[in-house]
Amino acid sequence: MNIFWNTRVSRLSPYVPGEQPGSGNLIKLNTNENPYPPSPKVVEAIRSLVSGADAGAPLRLYPDPACTAFREAVALRYGVRAEQVFPGNGSDEVLAFAFGAFFEQEAPGPGAGEAPRALLFPDITYSFYPVYAGLWNLPFRGIPVEKDFSINPQDYCVPSAGTVIPNPNAPTGRALPFTNRSGEGSGALADIVEYQLANKRVVIIDEAYAAFGAESAVPFIGRYPNLLTVHTLSKSASLAGLRAAFAIGSAGLIEGLFRIRDSFNSYTLDRLALAGAAAAVADSSYYQGINKKVIATRERIAGALASMGFEVIPSRANFLFIRWKGPGPSSRKNSPLSGEVLFRALRDRGILVRHFNKPRIADYLRVSIGTDPQMDAFLEACGEITGTKPGNEAAGSTGG
Amino acid sequence: MNIFWNTRVSRLSPYVPGEQPGSGNLIKLNTNENPYPPSPKVVEAIRSLVSGADAGAPLRLYPDPACTAFREAVALRYGVRAEQVFPGNGSDEVLAFAFGAFFEQEAPGPGAGEAPRALLFPDITYSFYPVYAGLWNLPFRGIPVEKDFSINPQDYCVPSAGTVIPNPNAPTGRALPFTNRSGEGSGALADIVEYQLANKRVVIIDEAYAAFGAESAVPFIGRYPNLLTVHTLSKSASLAGLRAAFAIGSAGLIEGLFRIRDSFNSYTLDRLALAGAAAAVADSSYYQGINKKVIATRERIAGALASMGFEVIPSRANFLFIRWKGPGPSSRKNSPLSGEVLFRALRDRGILVRHFNKPRIADYLRVSIGTDPQMDAFLEACGEITGTKPGNEAAGSTGG
Repeated sequence: MNIFWNTRVSRLSPYVPGEQPGSGNLIKLNTNENPYPPSPKVVEAIRSLVSGADAGAPLRLYPDPACTAFREAVALRYGVRAEQVFPGNGSDEVLAFAFGAFFEQEAPGPGAGEAPRALLFPDITYSFYPVYAGLWNLPFRGIPVEKDFSINPQDYCVPSAGTVIPNPNAPTGRALPFTNRSGEGSGALADIVEYQLANKRVVIIDEAYAAFGAESAVPFIGRYPNLLTVHTLSKSASLAGLRAAFAIGSAGLIEGLFRIRDSFNSYTLDRLALAGAAAAVADSSYYQGINKKVIATRERIAGALASMGFEVIPSRANFLFIRWKGPGPSSRKNSPLSGEVLFRALRDRGILVRHFNKPRIADYLRVSIGTDPQMDAFLEACGEITGTKPGNEAAGSTGG
Repeated sequence: MNIFWNTRVSRLSPYVPGEQPGSGNLIKLNTNENPYPPSPKVVEAIRSLVSGADAGAPLRLYPDPACTAFREAVALRYGVRAEQVFPGNGSDEVLAFAFGAFFEQEAPGPGAGEAPRALLFPDITYSFYPVYAGLWNLPFRGIPVEKDFSINPQDYCVPSAGTVIPNPNAPTGRALPFTNRSGEGSGALADIVEYQLANKRVVIIDEAYAAFGAESAVPFIGRYPNLLTVHTLSKSASLAGLRAAFAIGSAGLIEGLFRIRDSFNSYTLDRLALAGAAAAVADSSYYQGINKKVIATRERIAGALASMGFEVIPSRANFLFIRWKGPGPSSRKNSPLSGEVLFRALRDRGILVRHFNKPRIADYLRVSIGTDPQMDAFLEACGEITGTKPGNEAAGSTGG
């Protein structure tokens, strides 16, 4: 606390990002980075701005505040129009603007004397959502996920000030279909969007991890003017270090995002990031290749972990959410393998994963999918710690 | 307007940045970019991340959220500690965070029944300040500058919710001393900081243009825990396209800025920007060289314009604020040379400057200092439009 902080800053509980260790000897499976390098075309697009006779000279001029080339690349790839695309410095920034633009601090309830409607998102989800709600002073309600961590869309078909659903969810990795073609089961995300449209509320689908196997809502933005999909190049395009992301939605929502951005910082993407981001979006064949490898590794490791006695939540993302189900090895009878103990034991072996010390998930670890050799080292360490080995069913699938 | 925008976004009047023309044939004197390229060491620091065997591979990993190397470079250059330095994506972002962290929406007045205190800044100043006030819903009061556009520090020694002073001011270019060593005249910026410290209010000194000749307040941050100085690499370091900036202030203020940043986006500077920014701050000899050239050109052009019959406000920045005082040439008797007419006539000749259609300054133009050949072309165009020529006093000084 400091006497010069205002009420907002004094009350905030900022987001705590995963550790970024300085030394390179750790196997880093804690922040869902892609283990493969970015496309050579991205690197070349950046290098061309700092090479040759005029090297670096463009950096003296402001970037294009409209980010036209990047947005046109996104529009071409996703079959939308550039005015349906908003550019951002990471999807965290896009989400911060969206929370500030579309959710009302005082959303009146539908009846007299009723409490104001709250913003809705799952109770187990990306831990930045409640932080944004604090930043903009928005009342929110965390809707409990099911016991198996799945989201029930019907829970979100209630009066609200807006809804945010990550698909796949983090840190669980579970995904939902956007549409429910068979008409069976507990429904699909489109049910939420339709319900909230009737109440004139915005639904954000956070697709940060969708490239690893979830159904994208992008084809439906023309049908739902209240639907905003949020995307990042950090994970699926191996560009966490470049800070580039985008939202796709109706032109009206995109204009709202530009209004708040231009009241904050008109140029959040620099010239190098813009050049790299446009090249990344255009090179989908390279990225489909590396992300297929990530998915194959995920399925292999999920099977191996299950055969060793871990609970493995079915994942459509580039990480696994796991819990040790079995007893500790005989030498550890007095030290049960809680999430925290397992986290520390892995760290002692040079492997960094993510542990959230929160209700319902304190015994789980989120493990980013690395290269095959990295994941083999992870499996070996898990075997050492738990006193088990992957069984023959190691080639199985999560069936997610 | 859109039915999905919330109250905040519906009411905002976003900032409108200067035009960034796509084609390269214009002489661009409209957004205060530095006419000289960035340091070769900046370019090399960036190129090294996208060259060689491992080219681009670091981009797959998140940047350092603490921005340690950049902050340490700033600390070394300015003689402060790294915890007194906040890193930002342009000074616009730093200012947006500072407005959100230190100024209270409802600052109680000193007496019972008194109106809440307002945030103070000059009425003629950087036009983003009222936009930030709108973003965070902060009541503010624009304090009229004097007839000659100078700021009177005594006007700001009144109860407030906080104070923002750009030094030099934009778009006027006028500067104030931070200290008043002689004890004469209308005082200095330190008077404001001392007064507001007694009232526990923060004073922001926006030093975006200070490298072009104003006294910096940085040496005084140890004395005033309520003083935040804001700096950018956009102008003085020729890096508008890289998006890097910083604030220097007491560790408590810096922690407040980190709290709000980490509730918004933990990584606003990418790896390339961080590398370039650290290299720029370290290469002060290169930048002192090019900025001396900018200052010399400014003084030469100011003298020439004055000799032609322009009013030239004394400038300590990398731009001039000018107004045509004389009559229009005989062929234009029915078309007085208002700021707007002069702006259009320059644009017709391929020269882009900035015109603000606002009370008190509508007849002025803000002209960024370009290279000597660019400024000679500008002078020639002014001569054509006004029917005059620079006199012998063209080598004079603004005496600012």
